[in-house]
This record gives sequence, structure tokens and C-alpha cells, in this order.
Amino acid sequence: MGLAQRIGARGSEFLLFALTPPRITVTRERAQEIADVTQKRLTPLGLDGLLLYDIDDESYRNPQERPFPFLPTMDPAAFRAQHLQGWDTPVVVYRAVGKYEEGDLRAWMEAQDADRALTVFVGAPSRHRRSATSLVRAQELWAQTRPDMRLGGVALPERHTRRGEEHLRLIAKQEAGCSFFVTQVVYDVNAAKNLVSDYRYECAARGLEPVPIVFTFSVCGSLKTLEFLGWLGVDVPRWIQNDLRHADNTLHASYEHALGAAGELIGYCRRMGVPFGVNVESVSIRLAEIEASVDLAQHLGRELQR
Amino acid sequence: MGLAQRIGARGSEFLLFALTPPRITVTRERAQEIADVTQKRLTPLGLDGLLLYDIDDESYRNPQERPFPFLPTMDPAAFRAQHLQGWDTPVVVYRAVGKYEEGDLRAWMEAQDADRALTVFVGAPSRHRRSATSLVRAQELWAQTRPDMRLGGVALPERHTRRGEEHLRLIAKQEAGCSFFVTQVVYDVNAAKNLVSDYRYECAARGLEPVPIVFTFSVCGSLKTLEFLGWLGVDVPRWIQNDLRHADNTLHASYEHALGAAGELIGYCRRMGVPFGVNVESVSIRLAEIEASVDLAQHLGRELQR
Repeated sequence: MGLAQRIGARGSEFLLFALTPPRITVTRERAQEIADVTQKRLTPLGLDGLLLYDIDDESYRNPQERPFPFLPTMDPAAFRAQHLQGWDTPVVVYRAVGKYEEGDLRAWMEAQDADRALTVFVGAPSRHRRSATSLVRAQELWAQTRPDMRLGGVALPERHTRRGEEHLRLIAKQEAGCSFFVTQVVYDVNAAKNLVSDYRYECAARGLEPVPIVFTFSVCGSLKTLEFLGWLGVDVPRWIQNDLRHADNTLHASYEHALGAAGELIGYCRRMGVPFGVNVESVSIRLAEIEASVDLAQHLGRELQR
Repeated sequence: MGLAQRIGARGSEFLLFALTPPRITVTRERAQEIADVTQKRLTPLGLDGLLLYDIDDESYRNPQERPFPFLPTMDPAAFRAQHLQGWDTPVVVYRAVGKYEEGDLRAWMEAQDADRALTVFVGAPSRHRRSATSLVRAQELWAQTRPDMRLGGVALPERHTRRGEEHLRLIAKQEAGCSFFVTQVVYDVNAAKNLVSDYRYECAARGLEPVPIVFTFSVCGSLKTLEFLGWLGVDVPRWIQNDLRHADNTLHASYEHALGAAGELIGYCRRMGVPFGVNVESVSIRLAEIEASVDLAQHLGRELQR
């Protein structure tokens, strides 16, 4: 059974890997090289699917200086269509819906094979910005054109910590058609458990079945990356920040933390009967960090009952 | 080596049990019965020490209605002197210093055997209330009269979550003479780890050796007790609250949570090289909860390297 079918059946324990497409400035040949190397690296993992992020310049949502400059990346749909034809498991293509006109979104959805492509819609986080298509409108387009294609939503444990109602947002998205959720990188396991717990009990109270939540983990090879996580709105608990700052090997320490966090969430979701997946995100272009991400995915894959 | 010597040597892994003295309204005979039953129940645990709380009416610090009425309890120093003469390990006697005149505090300290009695000073939490002796003044009295007697302080992970400077308070108390700390009941392990971590690295930066931190755990047998924990200012993470609310057996679920939290903190402190102790607090007068507390202490005692 493929990823789309498993998600439709409220399956659990799947393994994903997330990539950011190459910068738009690379040549076609270089993009293909990157795609080939990546496929070669990921094939041994036996992934259930690949996630392709759609990076938007989010500097408008955080007035503080971005630790890494924003570099526009290729449209993930284009990167997949042009360079990842050989990839043999389903791809979850992110759509930062505010970037696309309705017609473009609709045309893209219409062209997809629902067994091979899933999508996650991400709304523009700020109201102070012109958005070509809103999240709600994008969901309507999906319902009109491709309700058979699996639609996912973003789950933010950090927002639950601040506002305590992320579980209600998840349920609203579920009612709008989402059949899975993906978190941003999880460092605060407690916040993630709070969200899972509130979501699970709210589903029970409403007679809804919970849909799979995919938890994202990554390694963090430098203090600059740690700073960037903070800029992105990821809560990294003080004790983990301290560990990373004082570690002889930041990459290794972050790997251990990711393993620990994932193990705790896997055990918790199993106990709570909430279906879940694990996603490893490669955040850096440094080879050591890419390799550590692949190792992490392999390690976590062995923990899953697949 | 007794508890006082072990604390002086920055020892670790000790096991304590905390009691609230009987209400002041009980007869002398009844108080003795309570003391006898308690000693019989606790002796098999092989405790390193007993903590006796000094309960103050804290209703001034929280305007919300107290879930349980405030019932004045015996002075722990008097309870020990009159009813616990037969108890053979050291006793840590709490002093809510705001309740006592300087002369009384001084006289009590002068009468103690430093091998048999330790003390923890607790300051009045609010400025809106007449306080006979301030925490700082009590520490001065201690330094003048009984600097050989082990003095402890209170550590509040919750305050660290709010203000981020509890580690600096601990260091200030340490500089004022405290040689150990005791937390209130820990449900938020993440907050406790944050405090331990910040404290440990701040000690390292100042060339100080960390002193033992005693973490307190308890069972919670009812939703009323859960509500009371909230009133007392204990942060219980949402997911744990949900688990307790939906458990078939609240007492059993809270026991499992306490075991998990203690195990995580024990592992963390060992890894960080911060000396620690474990304290089990009996919060209820219901027999099932008292027995579960004793079982918890026994179970945790086996986890410690004693």
C-alpha cells in the first residue's frame, strides 16, 4: 500500500524525508546532479515518501535579522517534474499557497496522479502581505478539483504553547479536507505531546478519528543553525540549547537529542493510539549534516513498525 | 555517612520522604499515634532523611479559592521534638521564616544537633503581608549562630519558566550559605531540566561546584488534588493533566508519571554531573494515596545508587 492509501486508512509509523529544492540560480544540469545525488543517497532508506518544501521569504513575519540570507529556491513542483521523474515513492509537494494564483494551483492539482503526489498547503502567516490565494480558498479549490488527492496541513506545537488552540485548528483543517499533518522541526517534546494529547481527546469528544501527524526532526550542526531555528519560531528548550552550545560536537549532540525526542514521541503516540509518521529534514547544505540526516532517518526507520 | 555529611561532601542519590505534621487540633495522643504509624510505615524504606513541612496559610498569594481549606498544622519542630524522638535518620525541618520572631528562630537553631537536624528556610512569598523575619535576615541569623547546621533552600522550576533567573537565585542562596535545594512537586520535567542546566553552566562559569538538588515527586489520586497542585503554582503539562483526567485510575496514572519524571531527571542529573536527591511527598491523608507514596519511594530508592 502506498503512502496515500496508508494515510487514507489512518495508517501509522511511516518514514519520510524532507528536502528543500535547489536555488533558482543553479543551472539545469546542476539541479539534475543534485537530484541524482539525493536519490542515490536516499534510496537505501526505503522511505515511504519524500517531502519537498516550498520556501517563501518569511522575513516579513519576523522583524529580526535572518541569520541566513533568504535565497529563492526552485518551485518544488517544477523540481519534481523536471528532475525527480525517477524517484519511485510518492512525493508530498508543499504549496505556499499565497505565492500562486488560483488558476495555477488548480492546474497543478489537476495534472497530478493521486497515488504519486500528495500536497501540504501552507498559508501566508501574516495578514500584512498580499497573498495570491488564501489557505481557505486553496482548500476550496482542492475540494472542487482533486478531493481524491491527499491534502495535508501544518501543525505547530509552538503555537499551541502560545495560544492553546492548535488542536482546534487541526480539527478545522481536518474538516476542510486534511487527512494528515506535518509539524515543523520538533525540539520541545513536551509541547508536541500537549498538542497530540489535546487533539486526541478533542477528536474523541467529537467522535472523530485522529489522522496521522508527521513529526519532523533534524540535526543541527552549528550554533548558527540553532539561531536560525529560533528565528523560524522553533522552541528549543533551554537545556537543549545549553547542551548544544557546550557540546564538543554540536552535530553529534543534536543527533542524540533528535533520537531521544523521536523515541519519546513514538512511544507516546503508540500509547495514545494516535497514528503518526516520522520525517527527517535536511536543513543544511554541509555534507556532514546531510549525512547525519540520512543516518538519523535510517536509525529512526528501524524504530518504526513498518 | 549521614545526610548532613553527604550533603556537605556534595553527595548525590539520596532518598527522602516528606510529611506534613498533623493538624494543631489533634490531641497529643492522636499526634503520637500518627507519628508511630508513620515511622512504622517508613522504616522499611531505609530513607536517608525525613522532611517535615511548615505549612503557612498561603491564601494571600493566590486570590483564587483554595480547593482544600487551610487547616493549621503543628509546628514541625515541635512535632519532631515531641513525637519523633525514636526516628533514627536525620530530619530536615522546614521553617516558614515569616512566622517566627528572630529570637525563636535563633533559639531553635541553637538547640539542634547538626548531625540529626537540617533545615530549609522558606521566605514569605508575598510582600503584602507582615513577615516576622525575612529570608535574608533568617540566613544572617543562621550564619551567626549555626553555620555548621546544613541549610537548604527552595528551588522553583516554575519560577524559572516565568522569569528565567531561578538559577541565579539558587547561586545567591548558595552564597548565603545554602548547601542543598529542594524543589516543589515536579510534573514539568522540561522546566526542571532547564533549571538544572542553567544552574550547572552558571556554576561552571563562576568556578562554583553545584550543590545537591532534591527533586520532589508525589502521587495525585484525584482531580481535586490536581486542581490543588495548580492552585499551589505547580505546572502540570497539559498532556499529563489530560492523562489524569481520562485515566480509569488517576492514582495509578500519576504513579506512572512520577516514575517517568523521576527516571528522566535522575538520568539527566547523572549525565550532567549535578548531585541530586529524590524526595517523595505524601500530599493526601487518604490511605490509598499514602500507601502509593510509600511504594513510589521504595521503587525510586531502587533506582538510586545508594
